[in-house]
Amino acid sequence: EIAEALSGSDVQRLAGVRVLLTAGPTREPLDPVRYLGNRSSGRMGYALAGALADLGAHVVLVSGPSALAPPAVAELVRVETALEMHAAVTARARDCDVFVATAAVADYRPAEPAGSKIKKGAETLEIRLVRNPDILAEVAALPKPPFTLGFAAETNDVEQYARGKLKDKRLDMIAANRVGGDSGGFEREENALLVLWNGGQRTLPMMSKVELARELAVLLAERYAEHHAASS
Amino acid sequence: EIAEALSGSDVQRLAGVRVLLTAGPTREPLDPVRYLGNRSSGRMGYALAGALADLGAHVVLVSGPSALAPPAVAELVRVETALEMHAAVTARARDCDVFVATAAVADYRPAEPAGSKIKKGAETLEIRLVRNPDILAEVAALPKPPFTLGFAAETNDVEQYARGKLKDKRLDMIAANRVGGDSGGFEREENALLVLWNGGQRTLPMMSKVELARELAVLLAERYAEHHAASS
Repeated sequence: EIAEALSGSDVQRLAGVRVLLTAGPTREPLDPVRYLGNRSSGRMGYALAGALADLGAHVVLVSGPSALAPPAVAELVRVETALEMHAAVTARARDCDVFVATAAVADYRPAEPAGSKIKKGAETLEIRLVRNPDILAEVAALPKPPFTLGFAAETNDVEQYARGKLKDKRLDMIAANRVGGDSGGFEREENALLVLWNGGQRTLPMMSKVELARELAVLLAERYAEHHAASS
Repeated sequence: EIAEALSGSDVQRLAGVRVLLTAGPTREPLDPVRYLGNRSSGRMGYALAGALADLGAHVVLVSGPSALAPPAVAELVRVETALEMHAAVTARARDCDVFVATAAVADYRPAEPAGSKIKKGAETLEIRLVRNPDILAEVAALPKPPFTLGFAAETNDVEQYARGKLKDKRLDMIAANRVGGDSGGFEREENALLVLWNGGQRTLPMMSKVELARELAVLLAERYAEHHAASS
């Protein structure tokens, strides 16, 4: 009965809360067949979207290309490029209470994608890239921003980069992990996270992304409740 | 009984023939999380590998990253980059009778992949790319080349490019298709092929990639038998 009661209170935790969540990689076309991509599988984002829905949240999932089956959420919006993800988020950011940015959005896109397949020729080729909009920073800088959770995937100096990103982008929380090598993260089933917020932090040790998503969802619900109480 | 006899003769068609087949895309790292990729799913190559094995061939499949379940073949070699595919093929090309190059191998790779994740900074970024080895041309130029089937995926002027590739790379056959737009090909279940060889051609109309693979495998077996009879 205690277990049921606890589980019951967990289920209610995010009832009525509107969550907008991005997941997966983006693909930035060089031509109709080639693109700049990244190793995000969407696994962590999909698991977190499912875990937040399990806590009662109304989840809108904006997803880049992923081979995984999407979780059961209120709405699924499929996009491919960073600009498409930006448009999908911008159109919905004012109508959410919580924004979660798990997507690995390409920082740059080819300046001039070719309309037909680039033929090989020269021994070397220069590609000019231009910056994509910073979706997370834009949402966090809205006049009435939602409670915002960002992610940082770094190959080195993880905590330092994450603290900088939390502050610079004025996020409410950031979840950081090491990628590359044997340290979990992209393309793996397991991960570990260091979660930071103003005035606190928690380490979620290496576990499956599904378990990790459940723990992170509960932590997000706690922080959101505190933030909500303080601001209302 | 006639059906059985026909089917029986099909099954025997490539018995004892050693096929080396490449499939899927390659990924060329920019840094530990970003890469240059392409839209090949591996579907056509996997279907063709399976169809050739069904005709009795001993199939070694060298595959770039694909989300699909691989077909039942004698050996599966997983690679990621064009250089890895080149090494895997080079090590095995002298021991095959037939080489089939369905892989969408990146023509270029970043000249200097970064060892740690590139941080965003400047508004624009230049990436220098260098040519990858031409695996198909190298195999076809071996002193005793295997019977070689190449593929051409083009967005325009399909037949013209394919005829040029057949001749320039000294291939025995080439299977060409249009990609991009609504014309089948990459990331689709269906495709149509124009198959060319010295002195002949056949159009395989739009059908599922599994059916298409079966027809192409039989056509390859016919051409290989003729070539083999002529050269022995």
